[in-house]
Amino acid sequence: MTETNGYFQNDNEKEINVLNLQSLEAEAEKIIPKGGFGYIAGGSEDNWTLKENTEAFNHVQIVPHVLSNVEDPQTDTSIFGINVKTPIMMSPAAAQGLAHAKGEIDTAAGIAKAGALMSQSTYSSTSIADTMKAGNGAPQFFQLYMSKDWNFNENLLKEAKEAGAKAIILTSDATVDGYRESDVVNDFQFPIPMANLTKFSEGDGKGKGIGEIYAAAAQKIGPDDIKRIKDIAGLPVIVKGVQSPEDALLAIGAGADGIYVSNHGGRQLNGGPASFDVLSDVAKAVNHRVPIIFDSGIRRGSHVFKALASGADLVALARPIIYGLALGGADGVYSVVEHLNDEFKTTMQLAGTKTIEDVKNSKLLKK
Amino acid sequence: MTETNGYFQNDNEKEINVLNLQSLEAEAEKIIPKGGFGYIAGGSEDNWTLKENTEAFNHVQIVPHVLSNVEDPQTDTSIFGINVKTPIMMSPAAAQGLAHAKGEIDTAAGIAKAGALMSQSTYSSTSIADTMKAGNGAPQFFQLYMSKDWNFNENLLKEAKEAGAKAIILTSDATVDGYRESDVVNDFQFPIPMANLTKFSEGDGKGKGIGEIYAAAAQKIGPDDIKRIKDIAGLPVIVKGVQSPEDALLAIGAGADGIYVSNHGGRQLNGGPASFDVLSDVAKAVNHRVPIIFDSGIRRGSHVFKALASGADLVALARPIIYGLALGGADGVYSVVEHLNDEFKTTMQLAGTKTIEDVKNSKLLKK
Amino acid sequence: MTETNGYFQNDNEKEINVLNLQSLEAEAEKIIPKGGFGYIAGGSEDNWTLKENTEAFNHVQIVPHVLSNVEDPQTDTSIFGINVKTPIMMSPAAAQGLAHAKGEIDTAAGIAKAGALMSQSTYSSTSIADTMKAGNGAPQFFQLYMSKDWNFNENLLKEAKEAGAKAIILTSDATVDGYRESDVVNDFQFPIPMANLTKFSEGDGKGKGIGEIYAAAAQKIGPDDIKRIKDIAGLPVIVKGVQSPEDALLAIGAGADGIYVSNHGGRQLNGGPASFDVLSDVAKAVNHRVPIIFDSGIRRGSHVFKALASGADLVALARPIIYGLALGGADGVYSVVEHLNDEFKTTMQLAGTKTIEDVKNSKLLKK
Amino acid sequence: MTETNGYFQNDNEKEINVLNLQSLEAEAEKIIPKGGFGYIAGGSEDNWTLKENTEAFNHVQIVPHVLSNVEDPQTDTSIFGINVKTPIMMSPAAAQGLAHAKGEIDTAAGIAKAGALMSQSTYSSTSIADTMKAGNGAPQFFQLYMSKDWNFNENLLKEAKEAGAKAIILTSDATVDGYRESDVVNDFQFPIPMANLTKFSEGDGKGKGIGEIYAAAAQKIGPDDIKRIKDIAGLPVIVKGVQSPEDALLAIGAGADGIYVSNHGGRQLNGGPASFDVLSDVAKAVNHRVPIIFDSGIRRGSHVFKALASGADLVALARPIIYGLALGGADGVYSVVEHLNDEFKTTMQLAGTKTIEDVKNSKLLKK
Repeated sequence: MTETNGYFQNDNEKEINVLNLQSLEAEAEKIIPKGGFGYIAGGSEDNWTLKENTEAFNHVQIVPHVLSNVEDPQTDTSIFGINVKTPIMMSPAAAQGLAHAKGEIDTAAGIAKAGALMSQSTYSSTSIADTMKAGNGAPQFFQLYMSKDWNFNENLLKEAKEAGAKAIILTSDATVDGYRESDVVNDFQFPIPMANLTKFSEGDGKGKGIGEIYAAAAQKIGPDDIKRIKDIAGLPVIVKGVQSPEDALLAIGAGADGIYVSNHGGRQLNGGPASFDVLSDVAKAVNHRVPIIFDSGIRRGSHVFKALASGADLVALARPIIYGLALGGADGVYSVVEHLNDEFKTTMQLAGTKTIEDVKNSKLLKK
Repeated sequence: MTETNGYFQNDNEKEINVLNLQSLEAEAEKIIPKGGFGYIAGGSEDNWTLKENTEAFNHVQIVPHVLSNVEDPQTDTSIFGINVKTPIMMSPAAAQGLAHAKGEIDTAAGIAKAGALMSQSTYSSTSIADTMKAGNGAPQFFQLYMSKDWNFNENLLKEAKEAGAKAIILTSDATVDGYRESDVVNDFQFPIPMANLTKFSEGDGKGKGIGEIYAAAAQKIGPDDIKRIKDIAGLPVIVKGVQSPEDALLAIGAGADGIYVSNHGGRQLNGGPASFDVLSDVAKAVNHRVPIIFDSGIRRGSHVFKALASGADLVALARPIIYGLALGGADGVYSVVEHLNDEFKTTMQLAGTKTIEDVKNSKLLKK
Repeated sequence: MTETNGYFQNDNEKEINVLNLQSLEAEAEKIIPKGGFGYIAGGSEDNWTLKENTEAFNHVQIVPHVLSNVEDPQTDTSIFGINVKTPIMMSPAAAQGLAHAKGEIDTAAGIAKAGALMSQSTYSSTSIADTMKAGNGAPQFFQLYMSKDWNFNENLLKEAKEAGAKAIILTSDATVDGYRESDVVNDFQFPIPMANLTKFSEGDGKGKGIGEIYAAAAQKIGPDDIKRIKDIAGLPVIVKGVQSPEDALLAIGAGADGIYVSNHGGRQLNGGPASFDVLSDVAKAVNHRVPIIFDSGIRRGSHVFKALASGADLVALARPIIYGLALGGADGVYSVVEHLNDEFKTTMQLAGTKTIEDVKNSKLLKK
Repeated sequence: MTETNGYFQNDNEKEINVLNLQSLEAEAEKIIPKGGFGYIAGGSEDNWTLKENTEAFNHVQIVPHVLSNVEDPQTDTSIFGINVKTPIMMSPAAAQGLAHAKGEIDTAAGIAKAGALMSQSTYSSTSIADTMKAGNGAPQFFQLYMSKDWNFNENLLKEAKEAGAKAIILTSDATVDGYRESDVVNDFQFPIPMANLTKFSEGDGKGKGIGEIYAAAAQKIGPDDIKRIKDIAGLPVIVKGVQSPEDALLAIGAGADGIYVSNHGGRQLNGGPASFDVLSDVAKAVNHRVPIIFDSGIRRGSHVFKALASGADLVALARPIIYGLALGGADGVYSVVEHLNDEFKTTMQLAGTKTIEDVKNSKLLKK
């Protein structure tokens, strides 16, 4: 245990047994302090969209194909020419120091060990360069909560570029904080600083609620910002939070190099559709012009399969990986990704698919 | 506490913490006497329509639009040229003295403080003029339960006009009382008088059940009554309780100046559709000829958004506001409306809308 | 209490408070011996069809029409030229002595008091003539479980005709007993005799299970039996148990004077549709050539309305009325019918309908 | 009780009371050791497909036809010219020694007594010849988990042929083990040997988990294997695990003599459709060219009816029969099949069908 400002952080470092990703939540709840756990686990309003995110995978079914003559399914794939061992990626998520003393340092290390792609949040507990270093050369993306202060934005983008980030994820669905009741119930303020704020802004985030943090960010985000960020960073820009074909086309028209279909894990707008329920329509509109990352609701190997078969190139998740971080540090993170990838490989073999390309070409059934 | 005829009324006067509107019901149940609470909270028959009213908002989803370049959403709007700070309005609701010693006096004050529109019920605990005065110049509508006795109707309409009411709401869906089991279980009779009955009729309502009260009202209400009421009041007439395109057109053809889509909060006909489920069809028929008010089931900011995007110009609610009244008097009422408007503003920003007009032009998704 | 063969029968004679028809079941369970209660309440297999019967009324909604200028709704109607005060009818149901010492005698008296139509089962606890007499001139139908023994059939039909029955209901959906688990769990055999068996067959039914009783009845029932029964009885014949347009047309083509849409209250075939879900298709096929009676699932005034609006001329039910019989004898029966008719009148008024003809012409909504 | 390697097996030999097939699970859980019970009862991942398998039968309804003039329904039918008394068949299921000391010996005897068709699993606790002998001349099929080792395959197929098996079932949906959480939770390894492994392979399966067992089997199974197996066995080959029209046509094109629609009782791919939900589309594609066997989810007589009416020629099940085996040995097995066949006969009679051909020609309703 590490104590920071009266907040107790785990410092577990071990591989963990993962029965399934859902079961990790109750285990993590026992060891993450209440406010931090509520911040990580909670959604907005009555959590309808949060629950629907996972439920929606039951709206379609995988048609298994037998006599396919396949064995030993391969999960390696690539995005922007970057090779990864698995299409499972770490979603950008703030303040992972809430779950573990080492925060994103350990997440990056565990993700790297799994051969997966890491993404860092602007509101990380650890700095861009430190987190990148922990990944030991493994690919990482940097997520930008665009600030009203363009000096801040430029500093972050430059550090990301210099540290070796491969792309910028521009979050577009969080121009104000969703109404997250668990934070209200717990009267939650961040007990620990955010490294990028400490380094490049006046405050360090500590003692603030997520509402205050987001208030410093830009509310007005428009298509022109994509180009501006691309120019500063000199990296591909992926627009995160897209939930409609119209927005996907708008973003691509404005220069986006990737589309990230997400509803922020049900933490922002409640009463919107499950992220999975809009994926295939967005993918049809995108029509392979740029890659698609998908998150919000993935908990099972069969979900990974269904998302890829609906048009995603990579699938991302955060909560279960953060629970793995709390329970086992870098090795816990690794255990979670490995478990999910194992479930996914089982699904691939049983569905009669050998490669990620085969999965993407699978037809789902709506019954 | 104020005691009237053995009935204990709260006299709380304070702003309250509102986690969400649904959570207020259990808090209010602790402090409103059982019979009064049952009268306020109950629906008819097995409450199917009552429950469906809120559930129906999940039948469609908000498609959030990112990269919209908006900030600081504005909720001000207008109806009949009257400006209000929010599209959220107080539904007409009887006997608010059941919840608080000051009854509608405090409701009107709290609604005025929120910059919202107040409506008074014929069966109010306080008089038209007193309630209007409490609003301190803020706009109010008067709701008429049309009596068989036209002297009674004329007296009410004249007092409303003189006191400054801006429109008359003619309730058309309560020509007999719905079968409300909670009132039967509690053997509920009104323990406190109704000011307008005291003033203009023979009895004051005290000691009567809602069935007896409604029996004094007219059962036969027809299109011609709209014109008659308009002539007497010299005010716009809004027909409340409309649930079909046919009835909307009938009312407009007979001179109605507004349509109020409602199923009386699930308190009248059970086994009819959720109010929200019929809104868009009614709105298509009305086609902007007159304004539309909507109530029945609104509990969340996302519900306000969905109702406006389905054709409503204003949305109304009563139960949660009455719970706010019980818990905090005028300031409690204010707290509830402010909370709901805050949830709504969050939804507006996350959906990429800046004005009420933007919200109305939003397309919803059916998944 | 009356004790017969160790079976304790109530002899309550009083009007009862009916909160709603569903709530009667728990009250009746307290006073009807376990085996008898299980026989009355149970359905077949896992009760899917039994539950769906009532749930199905939520598949469509009543569109209330306001400004209809109606008051004082009238529930009187007629079938085969017989006037009744309500479209609510007693379904034929066996062995009502299980619920009350007076059995069908009291049911007939209570139904007559309510101005409703009574139907008697072949397997009644009381004789055709005695039950008819208890009705004191009020209209009754006689239901035939057609026996393999045509002497038995003839004796019954003649007694029915002589006693004044107005029509014969030929049950066609019970050529073998449904698999009713509650009877198996309770190892249920009829503890009391069946009057018609006592009079016209070798055994009296006592000590037998429903399977044995049904085994004495004909398994093979065909279109030709309709004519044969008509000829013997000289009365209109209504075919009960019809659930498809094809069967309705077959029965009418073979001479049926009425169609009785029913799935035997979910007691026979499980895994078939809710009775209400097939009503409108059957009604379309029948196209007013003969009257339609409907049962299976009716518990609310809104259900009565929906069934009539879907093509029924009369609606029938048994279980809740038998519970009323157990709780209050003839007056209990009366209380139940009156309560349901009151709920129905409330629905009529709120829907803007004045007559049964108006109800039949109402359009329902599918949302 | 018989104890093998610390694992306690029942040796009950008696007919049992079967209320319904679902109720057997809780009874069996009391007497089968935890690990063995978990192996038998469990499905994969979160059991969605397992539950949906049975739930799916409610997606369509049986339209009962009255006035059909039928009695005494006959359940006898045939497949490949083999006559059976019932269309209900034993699914191939591994390691029935987990449930009973005599394992498949007793299952075969009970199935034979019921006049049904037995199928043996490659991973049986008892040998092909012994199990066949226990059936005393009654028809049996042999199921092949195709090994990587073709000597093993040939040995099995030859023993099956010599022992008198009538067909080979080639399982194609288990090229890797589904992720079965109950086995993980129980850390389950087979405590008892598998007779065919003992006889023809290096290990006997004891002490291994199902994952290890499946790993010895072939992962690559293709259309050509059908022909190869046919040639070795000289028997018809049925491909098991088909869930799509495409795969059915592929298998038939490659020489399959029968199609076995199944999702392995929800034990393999989770997130695929209920087996029943794909049956009718597969049947349309097969178009009577070869017979269809169906399993996964059958628990009721009405399910048997619906599966046959959707295109199956035989329906199979395993879990409830294995529970009967645990509770009563051969006679327990017999009791379960008899009970299910009795429920099915009741359904046949109530639906107005006399023969299996009538059932197959019945139209189902989708409401």
